[in-house]
Amino acid sequence: MTIQEIPAGTLDAAKFIEEQVRQISQTVGTGTAINALSGGVDSSAVTLLGHKALGDKLKTYFIQNGLMREGEPERVQALFHSLGVRVEVVDAREEFLGALKGLTDPEEKREAVTQTFYKRVFGRLVKQSGARFLLQGTILTDVDETVAGIKRQHNVFAQLGIDPEQAFGYRILEPLVQLRKDGVRKVAEALGLPPSVFGRMPFPGPALAARVIGETTPERLALVRKATVITEDLLAQAGAFQCMAILHEDRVTGMREGRREFGFQIEIRCWDSVDARHATPTRLPWETLEALSGRILAEVPGVVSVTYHIAPKPPSTMEAI
Amino acid sequence: MTIQEIPAGTLDAAKFIEEQVRQISQTVGTGTAINALSGGVDSSAVTLLGHKALGDKLKTYFIQNGLMREGEPERVQALFHSLGVRVEVVDAREEFLGALKGLTDPEEKREAVTQTFYKRVFGRLVKQSGARFLLQGTILTDVDETVAGIKRQHNVFAQLGIDPEQAFGYRILEPLVQLRKDGVRKVAEALGLPPSVFGRMPFPGPALAARVIGETTPERLALVRKATVITEDLLAQAGAFQCMAILHEDRVTGMREGRREFGFQIEIRCWDSVDARHATPTRLPWETLEALSGRILAEVPGVVSVTYHIAPKPPSTMEAI
Repeated sequence: MTIQEIPAGTLDAAKFIEEQVRQISQTVGTGTAINALSGGVDSSAVTLLGHKALGDKLKTYFIQNGLMREGEPERVQALFHSLGVRVEVVDAREEFLGALKGLTDPEEKREAVTQTFYKRVFGRLVKQSGARFLLQGTILTDVDETVAGIKRQHNVFAQLGIDPEQAFGYRILEPLVQLRKDGVRKVAEALGLPPSVFGRMPFPGPALAARVIGETTPERLALVRKATVITEDLLAQAGAFQCMAILHEDRVTGMREGRREFGFQIEIRCWDSVDARHATPTRLPWETLEALSGRILAEVPGVVSVTYHIAPKPPSTMEAI
Repeated sequence: MTIQEIPAGTLDAAKFIEEQVRQISQTVGTGTAINALSGGVDSSAVTLLGHKALGDKLKTYFIQNGLMREGEPERVQALFHSLGVRVEVVDAREEFLGALKGLTDPEEKREAVTQTFYKRVFGRLVKQSGARFLLQGTILTDVDETVAGIKRQHNVFAQLGIDPEQAFGYRILEPLVQLRKDGVRKVAEALGLPPSVFGRMPFPGPALAARVIGETTPERLALVRKATVITEDLLAQAGAFQCMAILHEDRVTGMREGRREFGFQIEIRCWDSVDARHATPTRLPWETLEALSGRILAEVPGVVSVTYHIAPKPPSTMEAI
């Protein structure tokens, strides 16, 4: 079945919200639903759509997978609390890191995050809750890229010929699947989410595991997490579509206090884009590039080299892996 | 023994040349010497100093190690022919690539190039020629970095406690060892070398093997060689101290014609520096960065990502490995 795209330009956000709320309400009926909130614009919009449609019949979880950015669970929980939505934080760090141990292939890493998320953590929550419906923030670009075999997104099943009800025991609703990122932002704003959410940069499903080339260990996550804080801090005002720090597996020669140090390399990417299908590197001023490199070298232990990504998508993709 | 530095500012190039020519002449006496010319400023200056001192008693070889840039042997041979110096090209590609096979550690790669150069190829040439003296373009920065343990340069023995006469069967003369790069350039100009040589960017001893992270295979050398042509072409006018293209071992996700391509990444470095001890990335204009990325993506097969190095030395070093 082909999905009918709704371009952001022709989207009537209020009408779209009304329609989706009605459909969620009808589909779930007297049942209960659950959803996972990451704090990104997609899952935040879905949480509010579901909350409007179902009220207390929707149970919203924030899965702490150990792959999040600094302070993420606390920030997201506090924001939604202020919007009247209760969010339960589930600590699943050991399960995710255990599943990622020893994996270096990008597809295997994504698959480990997917399986841990759906089969283990969410499967358990659904069984406990008795919910038969899962609300999810899949957007059209996720579907396109999965169908094209570019990346297996963590949230696309039907397109891969997997029946989630049979495979995972519940049914998935994807109210945003006709939209691209720019459309979702309009919906999020119309839902009353603050600019920090509706204008928020995309963050990948496998989170920081997608930003560690090679094995995702707690030590390597700590490095990329520190670099991410600095990158997002310094590029907050850049007006970019998305920015990120990536820890390479390749080691490079450096020197500190006159001695050789075979150290780490961090790659920064900062994208200009409207809808994530095409993107070009932001033409950051040199002062910003030098500030980025200076702070990362000073604050992230063992890093001796910093690069800035200068290739467009395509043939690059937004994330490195 | 401490080496007495001659800073470029106080260097009298004509007097320096006269002094070195006299010393080479005295040391070699009625013997014969050989030297290896790579075409860089250091070995070019040494070749002319030796030629002035020894005339036909100096035999100059260009070792084709398979790690050179596009067209290098032909270009160097033609230039020195025009200066009245005969250069013999020795094809040692199989020996070098054989020695590098399977090696990924930077120090092991450097060591393999060093051993192949001195013990195998040069040892053989010296035996054939009967020469007991090798002229070599070591400069003071090479010595500093080797002593500090940052990099083992291919041409520093005394500082490592290795007696080249005992280890390799000949004696090494290093007429440029009191100079840094800026001093060598003055000497090269005073020797009558053209701007393409005295203003030429440094190129590392292990050549393109230093610009392939991971194993140095003929296929990977071909990729970095293509990227090097483009980089040097587009940055020829940038006024930089040194520029380079580096092939990473890390693979990254890209897309071509709508399909996923798990491809290669090329890193560009372009340095502003006076003496190679400290260096900062050249603030290239965005038009140049985009032209670099555009041509590399279009012309180097399998490359889906290009980065530009934005960290200073230290804590980076000029070369990645």
